[in-house]
Amino acid sequence: MAKQKKEAKPKALPPKGFCDYFGTDVSERTKMLRQIAYVYHLYGFEQLESSAVETVEALGKFLPDVDRPNEGVFAWLEDEDWLALRYDLTAPLARVYAQHRNDLPSPYRRFAMGPVWRNEKPGPGRFRQFYQCDADTVGSASMAADAEICAMLADTLEGVGIARGDYIIRVNNRKVLNGVMEVAGVLDPTDLEKFTEARGIVLRAIDKLDRFGLEGVSQLLGAGRKDDSGDFTKGAGLTASQAEAIMGFMEALGATAAETLSNLRVLIKGSAVGEAGVDELEQISDLVIAQGYGSDRIVLDPSVVRGLGYYTGPVYEAELTFEIKDEKGRPRQFGSVAGGGRYDDLVKRFTGQEVPATGVSIGVDRLLAALRMKGRIEPVALGPVVVTVMDRDRMSDYQAMASELRTAGIRAEVYLGNPKNFGNQLKYADNRKSPIAIIEGGDEKMAGIVQIKDLILGAQLAKDATLEEWKARPSQIKVPRQELVEQVLNMLAAQGATE
Amino acid sequence: MAKQKKEAKPKALPPKGFCDYFGTDVSERTKMLRQIAYVYHLYGFEQLESSAVETVEALGKFLPDVDRPNEGVFAWLEDEDWLALRYDLTAPLARVYAQHRNDLPSPYRRFAMGPVWRNEKPGPGRFRQFYQCDADTVGSASMAADAEICAMLADTLEGVGIARGDYIIRVNNRKVLNGVMEVAGVLDPTDLEKFTEARGIVLRAIDKLDRFGLEGVSQLLGAGRKDDSGDFTKGAGLTASQAEAIMGFMEALGATAAETLSNLRVLIKGSAVGEAGVDELEQISDLVIAQGYGSDRIVLDPSVVRGLGYYTGPVYEAELTFEIKDEKGRPRQFGSVAGGGRYDDLVKRFTGQEVPATGVSIGVDRLLAALRMKGRIEPVALGPVVVTVMDRDRMSDYQAMASELRTAGIRAEVYLGNPKNFGNQLKYADNRKSPIAIIEGGDEKMAGIVQIKDLILGAQLAKDATLEEWKARPSQIKVPRQELVEQVLNMLAAQGATE
Repeated sequence: MAKQKKEAKPKALPPKGFCDYFGTDVSERTKMLRQIAYVYHLYGFEQLESSAVETVEALGKFLPDVDRPNEGVFAWLEDEDWLALRYDLTAPLARVYAQHRNDLPSPYRRFAMGPVWRNEKPGPGRFRQFYQCDADTVGSASMAADAEICAMLADTLEGVGIARGDYIIRVNNRKVLNGVMEVAGVLDPTDLEKFTEARGIVLRAIDKLDRFGLEGVSQLLGAGRKDDSGDFTKGAGLTASQAEAIMGFMEALGATAAETLSNLRVLIKGSAVGEAGVDELEQISDLVIAQGYGSDRIVLDPSVVRGLGYYTGPVYEAELTFEIKDEKGRPRQFGSVAGGGRYDDLVKRFTGQEVPATGVSIGVDRLLAALRMKGRIEPVALGPVVVTVMDRDRMSDYQAMASELRTAGIRAEVYLGNPKNFGNQLKYADNRKSPIAIIEGGDEKMAGIVQIKDLILGAQLAKDATLEEWKARPSQIKVPRQELVEQVLNMLAAQGATE
Repeated sequence: MAKQKKEAKPKALPPKGFCDYFGTDVSERTKMLRQIAYVYHLYGFEQLESSAVETVEALGKFLPDVDRPNEGVFAWLEDEDWLALRYDLTAPLARVYAQHRNDLPSPYRRFAMGPVWRNEKPGPGRFRQFYQCDADTVGSASMAADAEICAMLADTLEGVGIARGDYIIRVNNRKVLNGVMEVAGVLDPTDLEKFTEARGIVLRAIDKLDRFGLEGVSQLLGAGRKDDSGDFTKGAGLTASQAEAIMGFMEALGATAAETLSNLRVLIKGSAVGEAGVDELEQISDLVIAQGYGSDRIVLDPSVVRGLGYYTGPVYEAELTFEIKDEKGRPRQFGSVAGGGRYDDLVKRFTGQEVPATGVSIGVDRLLAALRMKGRIEPVALGPVVVTVMDRDRMSDYQAMASELRTAGIRAEVYLGNPKNFGNQLKYADNRKSPIAIIEGGDEKMAGIVQIKDLILGAQLAKDATLEEWKARPSQIKVPRQELVEQVLNMLAAQGATE
């Protein structure tokens, strides 16, 4: 090896916050993404795979919950350009759309799936590389685009195996909140900068509803909130009546969509932007109801605001409603697995022209975790049939067996470690979760037979069988060599039946 | 939007050397990777998806053809660690294996597919992010592991659609070349450093056989080579008889494997390492022949050396042998689409223990390009059925139609742009490659019918139909609303038949 001077051995670890996925972890995710892609494609969405690396300039400063540019991304200087790993799939879409807008259909429905990277403090279950799966419609201002994405999200969740009743899609509209704040005198819509700042503080407060409850949010809207440890978070500084108006908005959910809409109309009376927001909500509601998506699947819910600063109209989120246990064993709902909304300003950064867009992002790892919890992931496929090596000079005989099995569509491999210790070969088969081991020693070869060992049955017998059962159901059978494939198929079928 | 001060618009471009993939470009690659994964899985290989980011320390300095660390990778300082994007899938495998070796089966067969990044000068068709697809067996010193990968590579190529006869897998062994050099007095195997350096120069010269021919390689082994432009490349400085010995090695290919082996035995006579190399070649040859892989699929070929410095024994490469035209219209063979070999030292960097390993990497983009050239990619799927919007107040009617079509498995979407100009809607359908457009204006609604417009037939008729044909085969039909799905299915079936 080239110039291998004495040097410290490198650590065999990925960087902090990164991890590796093995075997079924990968194939289960791949399968789920394929199911999602099927639904997206059926709705007319086209796949886009943009580059993982973007210029920092193109990514802009829209990383969720971060105000400063480049905060939270992995970036480096390359020649004269700052490059960065994408932190989501929306910012690259804006760049791609701006770049190719003359060739792309308009409206452009696209979906994308792949890893994104965040330069954040890693923690338990919080990784710096993770998958996202997005669908967006760029170039349509119609509420039908938002309604379609909500309906598609419902179909997608059912498509991957979340039963109807186990999820709910909640829809709200940022303009309604803006209207409520305008009416309450919290903000002056003519001063854009101050408006946006105040709205940001209120949005962050509302978004904590899940964690802090109504009381906590109310405190965050007012003077501030002290947590159990005594730490104090400064509030938005609203007056009591202002905070009350905001809280009224969050509690405006009615028994029906019509009731919610009418509650909201009262709250935003006199605000043009608020009126527009409620109109949009009503259009979405009408569209999804007309398509048969009732309140068991899609509901209007004023308490949904979504964290991201860039949403400009409808926002929506999919929540899984079944119960799980938290770390302390207390029951809680599984929670959000997807969210999105309308962001009419994102492409404008590049072109100067406003381009309406709306889209959703699915949290791939969370949805996969939910499917595992609900037992909706098919049982782990068995490992390969292992052809053991009794005589290392006859590797080609063993390879031929594996080859025959594969030709019949059976996953199979020859043991490639040191064959001296046969016990190691069976341990290996065990580690590989092999259903069957094939054995052909010199005697068998002479007699023209092979031994087929049922490792599943063997393990069962070893656990709890009586002597009679051992005799009645031998876990190892001798068969003529030419019947190898047929007999393996039989044994696999029997295993499938008794498992 | 927050603090949108006057600032220069960002350029809507990816970084230099990066690009985006749209629609069928993505789905065709995905499909090919799925076919490859099927074969790998059948052979008992397990998928691994390691993180895209590694520490520079873990990646080491093994980037092909590059001697200095970090050259050619995208790297940045993060807190105290230098991080980098992986430049291939082998270096991460070594890290993963070293990290998890106590839990992984031994031998460990794994496959991986995904993007890698190279910080190289971009050029035409030369990107800084591209896909690789690897299969490796770690922990087996047996030549059966190498033979298996060669056989699997043949099955994989046929699995994705390369016909037998259109590819050849060539196998060689680095130890044989070492032996030849030792016998020729080119190098002294006891001085490891000098040995490696001299071997590197010779390897690079031999690897240029494709481009410069035997004569050019011979010059590179000797004093040097002047190219057409007059530029001079310094040679390895071998004496005439030394260069002749190396050239003899490259021309040792016989009519049969047995003849090639016997030619090689003559050349390496007296070199222990050379003997070992020919023995290994013979084992691989015997194994693949016994499994039915004849010289129409796998051959021994002493001219194959592979560029990478880290190979220690067998090397192999898959070449597509059908002819294509080069940029100047001259016929040439398509060339290499996959290559690999044995690299027994790679894991040792981490653990101090030598771990035998062998594996192959498929050039995903090249293989995909080859399949496209051979017409082995199924014709591009048609776009969605487009439900046009005649009356913007009846979006829910149109959405309901699209929804019914989707329920029947038909890809469908409602036009979501501004519906005012109906011509734009048909232009959109054209851009989307839609087979069918659905039209329901106020009159149709009243009459309980819909119009189904055959866009494929319409385009054909527009091109070359007579008036009689226009009348005989109307490209637009009126059907009762409740027959929408049935009639669309009929029309799609007819299109499939006449295409």
